[in-house]
Amino acid sequence: MLDDDPLPQQALAQLFSEGRTHNGWLDKEVPDSLLRQALELALWGPTSANCLPLRALFLRSREAKARLKDALLPGNVEKTMAAPAVAVMAYDLEFYEHLPRLYPATDARSWFAGNAVLIEKTAFRNATLQAGYFLLALRALGLDAGPMSGFDNDRVDAEFFAGGAIKSNFLINIGYGDPAKLYPRGPRFGFDEIAEIL
Amino acid sequence: MLDDDPLPQQALAQLFSEGRTHNGWLDKEVPDSLLRQALELALWGPTSANCLPLRALFLRSREAKARLKDALLPGNVEKTMAAPAVAVMAYDLEFYEHLPRLYPATDARSWFAGNAVLIEKTAFRNATLQAGYFLLALRALGLDAGPMSGFDNDRVDAEFFAGGAIKSNFLINIGYGDPAKLYPRGPRFGFDEIAEIL
Repeated sequence: MLDDDPLPQQALAQLFSEGRTHNGWLDKEVPDSLLRQALELALWGPTSANCLPLRALFLRSREAKARLKDALLPGNVEKTMAAPAVAVMAYDLEFYEHLPRLYPATDARSWFAGNAVLIEKTAFRNATLQAGYFLLALRALGLDAGPMSGFDNDRVDAEFFAGGAIKSNFLINIGYGDPAKLYPRGPRFGFDEIAEIL
Repeated sequence: MLDDDPLPQQALAQLFSEGRTHNGWLDKEVPDSLLRQALELALWGPTSANCLPLRALFLRSREAKARLKDALLPGNVEKTMAAPAVAVMAYDLEFYEHLPRLYPATDARSWFAGNAVLIEKTAFRNATLQAGYFLLALRALGLDAGPMSGFDNDRVDAEFFAGGAIKSNFLINIGYGDPAKLYPRGPRFGFDEIAEIL
């Protein structure tokens, strides 16, 4: 049984308040085992009807990253080619075929089959949630992340996801960040600017 | 400077592997200050061009929750009305109007103005990421969450977000979960079923 205590301040800092989007990387090895562990942790996070639509590619070799290069906005090329790993966060539009196994309590597959709008919305929403869990799992394991939307999704899909059921969402450069290459931190909203308690 | 160590196993369990979607709630007070702190932590998480499109309502009073009731699927009514707080996770389609302040490095507003498809995609993707950060921030603070998509978004928007720029995404019941009311845990994919290292 877990207790109801907050994590220590240092853990909250590592996950949230001191976490930064990194653009440069230290020369420190990132083992595959740590990437696996981060994704396995993220998979425990909740999704609607346990639909788990996230799919992921980890580009580690020079050859794999070269296949990504032409799809990147020019400003994202150098830091991405230099990152120890690049994760392609994607989602599976055929996720509902797995629901008889993932959500055996009821016939959840029938909620989706044939409803393209609901399929797209559910896949994109839940795979993005899972990508958020993954990003924080990386930080929880001591890694740093540099998420990016600045690339051509259609080119990435054509290059890595032939078949059409899997769509790229966004990219995350992964490594141990070089604090010397951080940009100034952007300001954040205060609670009362974006939220209300009723 | 943060070190590169993983969080302790107990913290990883609280955030990920032992976290559960809760359906029943202990009679233990949830102070507003903890909800504020969770959202403020989540706001530190990364978004594209620091666009921060998440908007949130916290329904705490009987009256506020009653306004939500008719929009819920029948199976979600009882647990939601009983939850100490219900967070409406939403997104602002006019988020780009804040970019001159949030991302002063360049004219990021001009990337979005007039491009409804990019606005919708960016708002939905990034506000969903932020909602994922928020859900894990709740757990990091010792709270439990019960996220739900089973409701009528249009009705919620009409009731709570007149004006049309703010759209509901999903709901999160919040409190200290009653372990006696958990459902059996759904299975998860293994790493190699959904991911590949290239």
